[in-house]
Amino acid sequence: MKTRQTIISAAAEVFDEFGYNGASMRQIMQRAGVTLGAVYFHFPNKEELARTVMNSQPGTVVPRLTSQGLQRVVDMTLVWSCQLQRDPILRAGVRLGVEQVGFGLRETASYEAWEHLIEDCFVGAQEFGELREHVVPRSLAEFVVGACTGVQLYSDLVCQRADLPARIVEMWKVLLPGIADDSTVQRIDASVQRATDLVA
Amino acid sequence: MKTRQTIISAAAEVFDEFGYNGASMRQIMQRAGVTLGAVYFHFPNKEELARTVMNSQPGTVVPRLTSQGLQRVVDMTLVWSCQLQRDPILRAGVRLGVEQVGFGLRETASYEAWEHLIEDCFVGAQEFGELREHVVPRSLAEFVVGACTGVQLYSDLVCQRADLPARIVEMWKVLLPGIADDSTVQRIDASVQRATDLVA
Repeated sequence: MKTRQTIISAAAEVFDEFGYNGASMRQIMQRAGVTLGAVYFHFPNKEELARTVMNSQPGTVVPRLTSQGLQRVVDMTLVWSCQLQRDPILRAGVRLGVEQVGFGLRETASYEAWEHLIEDCFVGAQEFGELREHVVPRSLAEFVVGACTGVQLYSDLVCQRADLPARIVEMWKVLLPGIADDSTVQRIDASVQRATDLVA
Repeated sequence: MKTRQTIISAAAEVFDEFGYNGASMRQIMQRAGVTLGAVYFHFPNKEELARTVMNSQPGTVVPRLTSQGLQRVVDMTLVWSCQLQRDPILRAGVRLGVEQVGFGLRETASYEAWEHLIEDCFVGAQEFGELREHVVPRSLAEFVVGACTGVQLYSDLVCQRADLPARIVEMWKVLLPGIADDSTVQRIDASVQRATDLVA
């Protein structure tokens, strides 16, 4: 693994465990097993490292997806819900994304990256004729990003995300009948079993 | 206003501005214009005060509602979305609710209070025949609480909640067709105008 990637992974672990304020460049250096000089060569400060971790999230989910259209959006959220229980990049990215206002950052790029990925899937779904006529891909993508953010937060509070995949399945049970026609709803697999299979 | 209520209001302002870690009992005392002894007489520590502020949220929204069933849930979220732009109790409650994991609290009571209020409305809506058959009031209420939490967070990041009422209107545009029959969807008013009227 390249040094830069090693540092990002180590930073993710440290941010996940200690949050932004609790993490130091020195701790990250130790976790990565590199010199402090190497850390600063790649990242001028902790803020830049936090930003990079936040923006690395989609890279840990998207390569696992093979489906298209509406099933792809569903799969994206299912994989995310499982990986959020164990992948430090995703866990740190979400923690930093939620807590950042408290330390003076307002980094929206990571939210917008998810939003664009999801919007693209909905546009595909629209082209495949899977969506109801009233659906606006962009508005729906914006809502799904907000909804997933809050659902994981609530699940984190209640049970440290143990039930997150089940809550995402419930989300799709609520959403699908309003956005897709009946035959598509029947066809889409939004189950915990599929989530488990996708990350196996 | 009773001393206890004065302290809660002052604490809400201080928590809203400085967060949990940034707020001190001394600051809250000064803001409330009472003695430190009075603060400690009512609240043994900052944690208890934070918990009380979090649990005071519904009291700032519910008294403004007059509708029933599905319109009542919609109104609850509309009023909340407007008041979150200015009511310190609500702003502090949401900030503490989101940031609490960072300072070692896992207080779910305030989320559950919203969930029960919303579930009651959905049960009412079900009795009025407003909901589609597949809808489970409790699951839907749980999802709405999570979704609203995330939607406000995203809106806060992007524009400090200036567009929150509009995002809540979008949420209902997405949700309503899947949970209510067509005639109910036509009848429900989920507009920014209604939000503005309700808090006027």
